[in-house]
Amino acid sequence: MRTKLLAAAVAVAALGGASLQALAQAKPDVLVKQRQAAMTLQGKYLGPIGAMMKGAAPYNADVVAVNATYLENLARMPWDGFVASTQGEKSKTKPAAFTDAAKFKAAADALEEATAKLGAAARAKNEAGVRAAFGPVAKACGNCHDNFREK
Amino acid sequence: MRTKLLAAAVAVAALGGASLQALAQAKPDVLVKQRQAAMTLQGKYLGPIGAMMKGAAPYNADVVAVNATYLENLARMPWDGFVASTQGEKSKTKPAAFTDAAKFKAAADALEEATAKLGAAARAKNEAGVRAAFGPVAKACGNCHDNFREK
Repeated sequence: MRTKLLAAAVAVAALGGASLQALAQAKPDVLVKQRQAAMTLQGKYLGPIGAMMKGAAPYNADVVAVNATYLENLARMPWDGFVASTQGEKSKTKPAAFTDAAKFKAAADALEEATAKLGAAARAKNEAGVRAAFGPVAKACGNCHDNFREK
Repeated sequence: MRTKLLAAAVAVAALGGASLQALAQAKPDVLVKQRQAAMTLQGKYLGPIGAMMKGAAPYNADVVAVNATYLENLARMPWDGFVASTQGEKSKTKPAAFTDAAKFKAAADALEEATAKLGAAARAKNEAGVRAAFGPVAKACGNCHDNFREK
């Protein structure tokens, strides 16, 4: 399999970052679709790493580097879609995501920070570091889902 | 608005890259959902840059840097979802995406290359470079949609 890795200096924005500005006027249904898209892709790229972590797939440092980098970017994308105008849209989001903004932001920040550490270890091809960084990523996913997503 | 830009060395994979390997067994409906999610997010982050390019919004180099970087990553995400097993799924994809693989790959490569140039110019805060690089990105989107997506 061809794996062409390009080393690029990439700037990523933290929660509440610049993209929010241009989205203020997006329609609620579009915002929900976009935030769900980010979650869908987080699942796409987290899944294979998770399979490697539990030994269900052989460890592949190239796959981990790519997927973790995507995750690091994707972890920053959903949050500006969780705005009050979307509360009437069909979604699994619990009201707490809108009513407890501080706790929601902390949960989002936790994912961003955990995926940044995972990404750094993955790009350094540091398997031990990846294994150490994976738990906090999975924990951040689960914590946010437990508190802010309906079963 | 807070814009915390983190300079991170990020490795991105080209078409046919590493993530494909771990996806070979994904269900067709999941693959379609994932590739559509990538397109949805490309629209989210391209739109604001497009608005700036045509003067409908003020140029904001920070927003452009973030959005173009996301785009550069997102441009690499859809392609491994266009596999033969998905041909029976509900989708706007034309059969040509599966029957003319060489042309489809060329169209995908064009987007990856164009977004990489846009991302580099955007992160360098080079507005002239961004303006020069935007056209090829828009053209790559339109070309692929014309050839491989139903209206």
